[in-house]
Formats: sequence, structure tokens, C-alpha cells
Amino acid sequence: MRCASWRFAGEANNLAPWKTVPEECAGYVRDYMTGKAYRFDLEMAAKETLVYARSLKIADDGKDAWVFDIDETLLSNLPYYSDHAFGLEIFNGQEFDKWVEKASAPAIESSWKVYEEILGLGFKIFLLTGRSERHHNVTVENLKRAGFRDWQKLILRESHDHGKTATMYKSERRQEIASDGYRILGNSGDQWSDLLGYSPSSRSFKLPNPMYFIP
Amino acid sequence: MRCASWRFAGEANNLAPWKTVPEECAGYVRDYMTGKAYRFDLEMAAKETLVYARSLKIADDGKDAWVFDIDETLLSNLPYYSDHAFGLEIFNGQEFDKWVEKASAPAIESSWKVYEEILGLGFKIFLLTGRSERHHNVTVENLKRAGFRDWQKLILRESHDHGKTATMYKSERRQEIASDGYRILGNSGDQWSDLLGYSPSSRSFKLPNPMYFIP
Repeated sequence: MRCASWRFAGEANNLAPWKTVPEECAGYVRDYMTGKAYRFDLEMAAKETLVYARSLKIADDGKDAWVFDIDETLLSNLPYYSDHAFGLEIFNGQEFDKWVEKASAPAIESSWKVYEEILGLGFKIFLLTGRSERHHNVTVENLKRAGFRDWQKLILRESHDHGKTATMYKSERRQEIASDGYRILGNSGDQWSDLLGYSPSSRSFKLPNPMYFIP
Repeated sequence: MRCASWRFAGEANNLAPWKTVPEECAGYVRDYMTGKAYRFDLEMAAKETLVYARSLKIADDGKDAWVFDIDETLLSNLPYYSDHAFGLEIFNGQEFDKWVEKASAPAIESSWKVYEEILGLGFKIFLLTGRSERHHNVTVENLKRAGFRDWQKLILRESHDHGKTATMYKSERRQEIASDGYRILGNSGDQWSDLLGYSPSSRSFKLPNPMYFIP
């Protein structure tokens, strides 16, 4: 398998759904995530996000909104995934929860810059995460520790959201944001399930992530 | 600029809209298109398309449909673009028309295989192209010469479609297909404007194309 083609197919959403990184691409994905390429790809996505955000006219009514996913979008779980073969292992929810509860995921630096500028432009920020409501406090703690501030609302999965696909759960919540009168002008996420579905943003930005796929 | 990151951002639809390949990526795009990488990326997309297509149950009513774009999806315009700097030049409609009228674009081989198998599985095939109605006959001639056969309908832009974005034009036509009772289960295209918008397919496949962007 040519792993660069596998990664392209993943980022273009052609592979969906996939469970783990193919074994023969383990080294490729590790090198990508830990070398310069991942950082460059993130920076390019950040640059294009800001070109778009700056081009918008922000209204005076405080209703222009930007939605950010959290994991692999604002916060990096690379310290966790470097202990779990960068996506080669089947996802282990219990192990991952222990990591989440440490509240020590670092900021993705390019995303932190995007976040600050989007805040400064006057957008209201909605954080829409697949994390569970019971991780509300550790998530707030982690976000603040990583330098994120001033969000309008942090939305986590409630008990009735479990079992829904991320696409469905996130679409429902975007629709609620819109029905509160907000105009969702931008949406940043590392999964297509952050971006597709109904009540979509005017424009979406897909951050790279070859380690896992969430439907 | 790191051209691999630029290409990733294009394929993930983060760059949109863009007019030409950045000058510093001219060599990169030429090497990509003429070397093995483009072919491998096409083959991976084809493989995943068939994994999905084979997984579907085809109904007996002849209403399961697959939509294909034509240019850079079924037919390759590489002979034209190799004379026009692989996307470094601003698109020249008159020059491109002369090329279209030759009816000599070769098949993208991996797409031809996908097409044949999808036909064999029992799908009805709809060809939905941004080409103009006045190129109907040369397009049929070119498709047949390249080995494509047995499509249900070839849909080209009519006079009232000019000035519409491809996203809007193609959404309208997909909706017409659906209102004729067809279930659009698959859609293959090299542009996001082939795949996004309303009345979308159950699942879409994005073929690589770093040479141009159609909104």
C-alpha cells in the first residue's frame, strides 16, 4: 500500500469508515505526526481559515458564530497516541478517559492563534465536542490551561446523545445554535463528522488527522 | 510554501476558492501529475469506491443510481494541461473548447474499471458534467472512443445553467434525478462542487485534482 495515497483518501473522506491505521502504514503515520509535515499541514489550514475569517463582515448584533471541535482541533492528544501506536491500536475508551481526566492535552499552536484572532474579530465561539458531559470540568480545566478563553458555550454529549453518530449529534447541536439566532459562518474540525450533516456552517475547515476516524 | 501541504489543503477543500496553482508549486504539481503519485491516488480512490459499491444491495426496480462527473473523473485532460503548465495558467475557455472538440481525451483507467463494475452491479449511471450542451455530440464521441458505454443519461449545462456555480447546477440536476425516482447511492467527482450542495449522494468519492478549482 502506498501510505501517502491512503492518507489522501482519508483526508478526502474516501475511506470512511475505517477502524485503525493499516499496519503497513504505522511507520508512515508516526513519522508524519511527529515530524514537520503534520505541523505544516496544520499551519496551512490555519492560514486559509484566517484568510476566510478576515474576509467576513461581522455584524453588530453579536450573532456571528464559529464552531470549533476540541480533540485534534484545539487540543492535541499526541502524548496519548504516541503511547498507543498513533492509531494502529483499536480505540480504547477507558484508557483514553484516563488521559482526558489528566486535563493536560497541549494546545495545537496554530489553532490557538486562529482561535485568538477569531475571538478578536468579534465572533462568538461555540465548542462542540464528542466528549461526554461528565468530562465537562476537566475539559474546561484543560482548555484554560492550554490558553483558550472566552467561549460562548461548551457543548458536550449528554446521556441521550450516546449512541448517536458524531455527524448526527453535531448537526443537532448546530441546529440548536442556529435556532438561537446565531449565524454559523465557520466550523473547524479534524473529522468530516464535525463538518458534514445538516445545519452546516457557511464554510468548513478540515484539519489533518490520519490517526483515527469518527463516524 | 510547502507544496504537499498546499495540495492537502486543496483536497480537503480548505483552499476554496483558488484561481491557479501557486507559482512555487508548479514543478511539484507537474511531477505529481506525470509521475506515479497521481495514478496511485486515483487507484486508491477507485478501490474504496468499489469496496462501497459492492457492499450495497441493488434493488430490482432499476432505480439505484450512480453519478459520475466527466472531466478529470472519467476522462483525463492531461494532454491539454501538459500544454498549459498543469494549472499554473489562468483557465482559458476558448483554448479548452478546442481541446474538447477534438474528442480525444483518454479514459482515466482506474475510473473506467470502476465504471464497468458499477454498471455490472446493476446501477443506472448518470453523467453530470459542467460541459455545455453544445458539446453534447463531441462528448458522446469522446466517451465512446474512451470505452464508456450504457449510461442512462448524459446531463450537460443548458443555456439557463450558465452563470450558476457548479455546486448549484449539479445539485439541481441531482434533485431532478431523485425526483424521477432514482436513489443516488454513489457520486464520483474530482471537484467538491461535484459532491456538495443539496440532494447529495449517500456517499461521495473525491478524486485527486491539484490543477484547478471549480466553484
